[in-house]
Amino acid sequence: MSFDAERLAQPAIRALRAYDPGHDLPTLRTRFGAVLAELGSNENPSGPSPKALAAAREALADSHRYPDPRCGRLRDVLSNHHGVSPDQLVFGNGSHELLMQLAQAFAGPDAAVMHSQYGFAVFAIAAAASGAPTICVPALPREHPSAPWGHDLDAMAAALRDDMRLVYLANPNNPTGTWFSPDALHAFLKKVPDDTLVVVDEAYGEFMQVAGHASALSLMAAHPNLVVTRTFSKAYALAGMRVGYLVAHPSVAAVLERLRESFNLGLATQAAAVAALADSVYLHLTLTRNAEERAWLAAELAERGHRTLPSLTNFLLLDTGEDAAPLERHLFDRGVIVRPMGGYGLPQTVRISVGSRAENRRLLEALP
Amino acid sequence: MSFDAERLAQPAIRALRAYDPGHDLPTLRTRFGAVLAELGSNENPSGPSPKALAAAREALADSHRYPDPRCGRLRDVLSNHHGVSPDQLVFGNGSHELLMQLAQAFAGPDAAVMHSQYGFAVFAIAAAASGAPTICVPALPREHPSAPWGHDLDAMAAALRDDMRLVYLANPNNPTGTWFSPDALHAFLKKVPDDTLVVVDEAYGEFMQVAGHASALSLMAAHPNLVVTRTFSKAYALAGMRVGYLVAHPSVAAVLERLRESFNLGLATQAAAVAALADSVYLHLTLTRNAEERAWLAAELAERGHRTLPSLTNFLLLDTGEDAAPLERHLFDRGVIVRPMGGYGLPQTVRISVGSRAENRRLLEALP
Repeated sequence: MSFDAERLAQPAIRALRAYDPGHDLPTLRTRFGAVLAELGSNENPSGPSPKALAAAREALADSHRYPDPRCGRLRDVLSNHHGVSPDQLVFGNGSHELLMQLAQAFAGPDAAVMHSQYGFAVFAIAAAASGAPTICVPALPREHPSAPWGHDLDAMAAALRDDMRLVYLANPNNPTGTWFSPDALHAFLKKVPDDTLVVVDEAYGEFMQVAGHASALSLMAAHPNLVVTRTFSKAYALAGMRVGYLVAHPSVAAVLERLRESFNLGLATQAAAVAALADSVYLHLTLTRNAEERAWLAAELAERGHRTLPSLTNFLLLDTGEDAAPLERHLFDRGVIVRPMGGYGLPQTVRISVGSRAENRRLLEALP
Repeated sequence: MSFDAERLAQPAIRALRAYDPGHDLPTLRTRFGAVLAELGSNENPSGPSPKALAAAREALADSHRYPDPRCGRLRDVLSNHHGVSPDQLVFGNGSHELLMQLAQAFAGPDAAVMHSQYGFAVFAIAAAASGAPTICVPALPREHPSAPWGHDLDAMAAALRDDMRLVYLANPNNPTGTWFSPDALHAFLKKVPDDTLVVVDEAYGEFMQVAGHASALSLMAAHPNLVVTRTFSKAYALAGMRVGYLVAHPSVAAVLERLRESFNLGLATQAAAVAALADSVYLHLTLTRNAEERAWLAAELAERGHRTLPSLTNFLLLDTGEDAAPLERHLFDRGVIVRPMGGYGLPQTVRISVGSRAENRRLLEALP
């Protein structure tokens, strides 16, 4: 057939590559059945709060109605939760959508984007879709004592330039698991002119429970160019329902609101997120469970000679020091799904989600 | 505060205005309670198939998992349903997302867009967001015998130009309710060069049950530049769950797939759509009910001296022949919500969704 739409696409879209969502899990579920250990997508094995599921089930009864375009209840509870104004919030069909729309709104051929090597993959995709010149700053070295392969904020500050409109950071970062302190972020922000937006993706922010840590949200009052993205997919275990949000200066939110599709968050989804946020006891339980299980898994892996990077998330990056593809394939053949990292330029590693104790045991047993 | 992100936004986004989702229904539900008649959003008062709701409820149990990024089951059943190849389908978080992404992928400052006056509002928003030059072709006159204010396909064909990459049509069109025949579309397509994509939004396509009608899908084999968008929000009554899709040449779909966020359709949403599509008996019931109720409501309105346009949808456009704002306000004050059409340039009309018999009676009783 001679028709080919490729040549009709805009230049930025012609150059774009889609996000890699990992292995084909529906097929693998059929193949492996109950033996399958799904440790490739950083999902939360505890599942969401039962109250969130109950709220979603109840809301389904109104499915013939459009959802609230303002996400009013969710907006109210989140603005209370974070102590921000309701007009500082923008909701996304997952934070993925928000990361894309930030670039669509603020980046372009004359408005550059910066992110770190080994930064979350969506950053580069969002920048590419917008057609923006993109600076990828080399990460910290593997030998760095606290943040191996982490963001090099000093180098990023040095790489700032006049046409830069958007810097994407992730804290903690996926897939490295590394994090930076509020002080380090503050020092970075002081070097960034306020016509450059700094986006801190805190998709794993709830897991980061260490002394001295604070969300970037604490710096927002002093830095109106700061944007924080969050998700209900990880700690709140609602990956299947698609809820992300960002907190930003009201004028940033107002720009994004124009681009947002009015009904981008489903009705049951909004209800689930409201109920999940209210169930702080359940969240605490899930975070405690994850921290314990992560420590146990890291120790068991270390005992077997496998090195993992420090992590304040619900995953561990396992560094084999050599091509990790054979290990990934070995596990895959036994129904243990972990995420290969070749696409990130880290082919010597695999990313392993902290599963339930049963799943983690299956991983350990399947190791060569 | 001196910080203003407005000046940092891309030019197309600075000029963009958000879609107007209508009145603030959550507030109105509180104010009016059970008296409220929600006839402003073209929702389906029959509600979705109970099987769709049951499937969604069951799927919720896996909400901590990411949804299938391929939408595999939904893809399979829809490709069977329409007799198209699975790689011709692209899924959207509502068809709104797809209409936006079509412009993002194929339109831009050097790639123009065309739509009809009184065409669905998202067409112009999608074009504006892409920064494309946009041609809005005057609609047919009010006096047109079969399509008052409908798309003027001859005029649109005459307005084609070399840099045009995207034409948006709606059949039937919202808010006019007008439609065109497969023959008229075929004649139009024959005049369109194949480097211009023609998008036919069939959001209300299922309602169009008249002799001689066929979906634009029937012309797809002969016209690879044809794209058809559909939704589960209207006839399938899943507006609250957000499912749209499009059928296109595989090369068009492949371009859009790069821009699509991998997990843009929730897990329960996919399950609901699969079950809704399978329940053809229920769909038939809902279409029959709508056709009967629409005829009854139009007749009752006519009896009271109110003129409505011909419609093959689940709504009626009421033409008052004068400023319709007082009528809209009168109904609003009595808890009967219809959609004002000033934003469409039709301030003499209001759009009334075909509700349940009880809601329609409430409308009739509330009329001045």
